[in-house]
Amino acid sequence: MTPDEFRRTGHQLIDWIAGYRERIDQHPVSAQVAPGEVRARLPAAPPEQPEAMAEVMADLDRVIMPGLTHWQSPRFFGYFPANAPLAGVLGDLASTGLGVLGLSWQSGPAITELEEVVTDWVRQMVGLSEGWSGVIQDTASTSTLVALICARERATGYAMARGGLQAEARPLTVYVSAHSHSSVDKAALLAGIGRDRIRLVPFDDAHAMRADALEAMVAEDLSRGFLPCAVVATTGTTATTAVDPVGAVAEVARRHGLWLHLDAAMAGSAMILPECRWMWEGVEGADSLVLNAHKWLGVPFDCSLYYVRDPQHLVRVMSTNPSFLQSAVDGQVKNLRDWGIPLGRRFRALKLWFVLREQGVAALRARLRRDMENARWLAGQVAAAPGWQVLAPVVLQTVCLRHAPAGLEGEALDRHTLRWAEGINRSGAAYLTPAVLDGRWMVRVSVGAEATERAHVAALWEAMRREAEGG
Amino acid sequence: MTPDEFRRTGHQLIDWIAGYRERIDQHPVSAQVAPGEVRARLPAAPPEQPEAMAEVMADLDRVIMPGLTHWQSPRFFGYFPANAPLAGVLGDLASTGLGVLGLSWQSGPAITELEEVVTDWVRQMVGLSEGWSGVIQDTASTSTLVALICARERATGYAMARGGLQAEARPLTVYVSAHSHSSVDKAALLAGIGRDRIRLVPFDDAHAMRADALEAMVAEDLSRGFLPCAVVATTGTTATTAVDPVGAVAEVARRHGLWLHLDAAMAGSAMILPECRWMWEGVEGADSLVLNAHKWLGVPFDCSLYYVRDPQHLVRVMSTNPSFLQSAVDGQVKNLRDWGIPLGRRFRALKLWFVLREQGVAALRARLRRDMENARWLAGQVAAAPGWQVLAPVVLQTVCLRHAPAGLEGEALDRHTLRWAEGINRSGAAYLTPAVLDGRWMVRVSVGAEATERAHVAALWEAMRREAEGG
Repeated sequence: MTPDEFRRTGHQLIDWIAGYRERIDQHPVSAQVAPGEVRARLPAAPPEQPEAMAEVMADLDRVIMPGLTHWQSPRFFGYFPANAPLAGVLGDLASTGLGVLGLSWQSGPAITELEEVVTDWVRQMVGLSEGWSGVIQDTASTSTLVALICARERATGYAMARGGLQAEARPLTVYVSAHSHSSVDKAALLAGIGRDRIRLVPFDDAHAMRADALEAMVAEDLSRGFLPCAVVATTGTTATTAVDPVGAVAEVARRHGLWLHLDAAMAGSAMILPECRWMWEGVEGADSLVLNAHKWLGVPFDCSLYYVRDPQHLVRVMSTNPSFLQSAVDGQVKNLRDWGIPLGRRFRALKLWFVLREQGVAALRARLRRDMENARWLAGQVAAAPGWQVLAPVVLQTVCLRHAPAGLEGEALDRHTLRWAEGINRSGAAYLTPAVLDGRWMVRVSVGAEATERAHVAALWEAMRREAEGG
Repeated sequence: MTPDEFRRTGHQLIDWIAGYRERIDQHPVSAQVAPGEVRARLPAAPPEQPEAMAEVMADLDRVIMPGLTHWQSPRFFGYFPANAPLAGVLGDLASTGLGVLGLSWQSGPAITELEEVVTDWVRQMVGLSEGWSGVIQDTASTSTLVALICARERATGYAMARGGLQAEARPLTVYVSAHSHSSVDKAALLAGIGRDRIRLVPFDDAHAMRADALEAMVAEDLSRGFLPCAVVATTGTTATTAVDPVGAVAEVARRHGLWLHLDAAMAGSAMILPECRWMWEGVEGADSLVLNAHKWLGVPFDCSLYYVRDPQHLVRVMSTNPSFLQSAVDGQVKNLRDWGIPLGRRFRALKLWFVLREQGVAALRARLRRDMENARWLAGQVAAAPGWQVLAPVVLQTVCLRHAPAGLEGEALDRHTLRWAEGINRSGAAYLTPAVLDGRWMVRVSVGAEATERAHVAALWEAMRREAEGG
């Protein structure tokens, strides 16, 4: 493709994206295809000869579009928001268009230094002290894996430099809560900690980890000859956005030398609001934390911010230094390949930079407050409606609810819940995520798509009543 | 940013990228800034209020551009190529503009199914049998980490489901070559295998792993009570693009139950050429392999293709299944979150799809042949010039060379090599990567940027002679 063809097709694609966003509300929110339907529309073999770009562009509408669930729709209330504001789309386009790679500082100094600056901007925005250093990872799953590997190495006195995890006689244990994200278990398992060594710390009525129970479990493990290695606390759990007491957990961690990793993938964004900072009381006692800028804050995926207290430890665990990556300035610069798993790195700081500058922090605060207000409004409606229940405190932007009319309980209630939630998802009117809470299915309404206004939440509430009560 | 502002600024940015690519040859290839220089041009604190997009765009030229090394320059001969053809830039833009996420099939069926189709297209292009299943990871570092964790779990009979790596009494060993990429060591260490358990298999005169030596090392480890776990072979090593004998290595692996992971990050692309397929004789005996479509093949970074023989094993190691990700169709679909580390996934298949369709496989073959021919031409010039040496067979597109005039040896030769290579890099005339080979510095000329024609290689050769001989 020549630059001129790129100009022509590029302008078309920009217009196509603009049009998509303008008319996104006209799409059913969730994909309406059956398994295999998209695949069946695609050739089984690659093209030997070039195809016209007009054909490729047309296939975006013909083949791809019917197979998408529209995460940017104002009627998307699933999972957690994954906002992709248009300024961020441009930042990402600049990155891909430049086609540069950050293998090392030398391979593109601006890639490293802009990343240092914008991760520090976010540090300031969320009220972390200067004792934290940030780096961009792809996802919280990866950030948490990095954290637990670093924890493993600290606990074992860098066993990786000797005989590895098997050289440590005391079995390592990791403490999580049943409300931790699935990626936390996964990270511990991938790091070599077995299922039998992952301790599930009990939680309280608000689904928050109990620091006293953690203390007791750690003490018991110590008495049995285990080596308590790490605890993962969560600010804003996936099911209910529960808030683990980071200060109290940090105190236990400090006392017993555990690594404290804080999963604030979702709720970390809310720390730009002073009224939410109570959730991070004691955060300075953590060793690492993850905050996904690609969620509520609104930097196009992927942009997971990983902050650590001790970057030298991170580098010691992650560094490699082959001759082809050495340079004369290595002592004076950060080589971010040594801050995570991949060697090659996209210029992801650009999209974060574009979003923060185009929007400004004040507007980000206003948008997050709008979403929290909308969630509280919905919770109020639900709490006041006969037969409806709000199942967990609404501390952020997620409302956990159930329609439980008198006489309906147990598995029959589960069937009812899944039926009406599936009905809404299938209709395309909105997208909701059912999940299990305390052994029973419920429905999560996760407010926070950039385009979602009060009217969309009100329409969702009407649709839920219609679907659940009329069924 | 409204869709209309996005149209306006988006068109500008498309034109800016087109202009950048048209005039890329005018930039010094390597960044001309000192450590901290880019950072010093950026505000220390985030903007409270919105800034004009015109300012942000202007800063691309003012702040970012001077701090870049231009990977898409026709005079870029560093590391390995990381091509970002303009059609691929558009495919990536479509992905970001759609702002969709593949957490599960359900969350965007087209994301999963297009990925299945295009990874299968590449499988066919490189001549792998239907016994292989592919998935897109970010980088080879991650793919290799996934491979070694899978190897660890196979060797230990899924210790992760019990007491983890520490529950296995026999120490696991991993076999690599001194010419393996730095990411291979790193992956083994992150997987919990200690430095003392990583065996360096001797290599032959062409820097290829010796299967007979591997056999002997495995036998000795077995006799000492170790548990040989995995061997990593390379098709196209980083220093010299040496080719490990995959068939012979696979035979040893089969005999002793080792996992064979094949690092074909660079040279895998060349398997679209029948004349290069000899490098993969025996490839069907591997358990996993990685091929970076974001290198020579030319899909904008990141697009690392990871192929496995036994996807069920991969899923068993990587899967999580929390309630919020379950759906009614789970038995009928692939959930690619269970094929790697991250839960969230970009729609990366789009850029691969765009590149393959816009270019066609025939044109890709022609481009790769052009690069190999240019590398052979350069090697011929070097070999014929007095005082110059070609240090390794040129089987692909990388020429390893040294200017070693009579009387210059040892550390003085090293100083000479680094001086003239640094001279070229600093001048901006071209970008080369010095590296250590057999204990002495040499210079790698890695041909393969999309824009690089014979004239650029010829100009490089002149510049090298001028810088080295005139110094």
